[in-house]
Amino acid sequence: MTTRDIDESVRAELNRLRESIDNIDAAVVHMLAERFKCTQQVGHLKAEHHLPPADPAREARQIQRLRHLAESAKLDPAFAEKLLNFIVAEVIRHHEQIADRPGRREPGVR
Amino acid sequence: MTTRDIDESVRAELNRLRESIDNIDAAVVHMLAERFKCTQQVGHLKAEHHLPPADPAREARQIQRLRHLAESAKLDPAFAEKLLNFIVAEVIRHHEQIADRPGRREPGVR
Repeated sequence: MTTRDIDESVRAELNRLRESIDNIDAAVVHMLAERFKCTQQVGHLKAEHHLPPADPAREARQIQRLRHLAESAKLDPAFAEKLLNFIVAEVIRHHEQIADRPGRREPGVR
Repeated sequence: MTTRDIDESVRAELNRLRESIDNIDAAVVHMLAERFKCTQQVGHLKAEHHLPPADPAREARQIQRLRHLAESAKLDPAFAEKLLNFIVAEVIRHHEQIADRPGRREPGVR
């Protein structure tokens, strides 16, 4: 095998793996778009019924569940927890925007 | 409708949305577990062939692609970019661990 053959087979293998990574990233972006559709609905429900944007008990349960799922999928549980915190921070930011928005629907006004 | 009915219907709606969020989170954790399997293989390839752990040109292309995908999925492109940076930082950390590991396979030694 020449150096050039090795280079080409390495490049082909790298490309194959990167195509899988790109497919997975597209799937994750679409899953997260769907997740934010759900959390936007949660945000509206909470704002209409004057529930607080953050819910620490729910978040603690989510973290425990995700850590277990990560372990069974051989993903670092600490990374799964950091990722959830990263996403939840964005969700809370959205909820606060919904709660602060002037003219939002009130339960008695609909 | 009594206050209690409203409370129960709100709680039911919240639970319905949270069940969907939990399903999506499980899917994302499993997609990311698969993504890290790919990037671990990339890390070994790079270490064996003495390629640098980070690849800024590839990352710039990934960011542009994900921003477009996010826009078409109605997800905030800035969030998609931050998320990719968050994941890539973890990947580079893994690649550096692989490159630093004593006794890793060298191309000529296999």
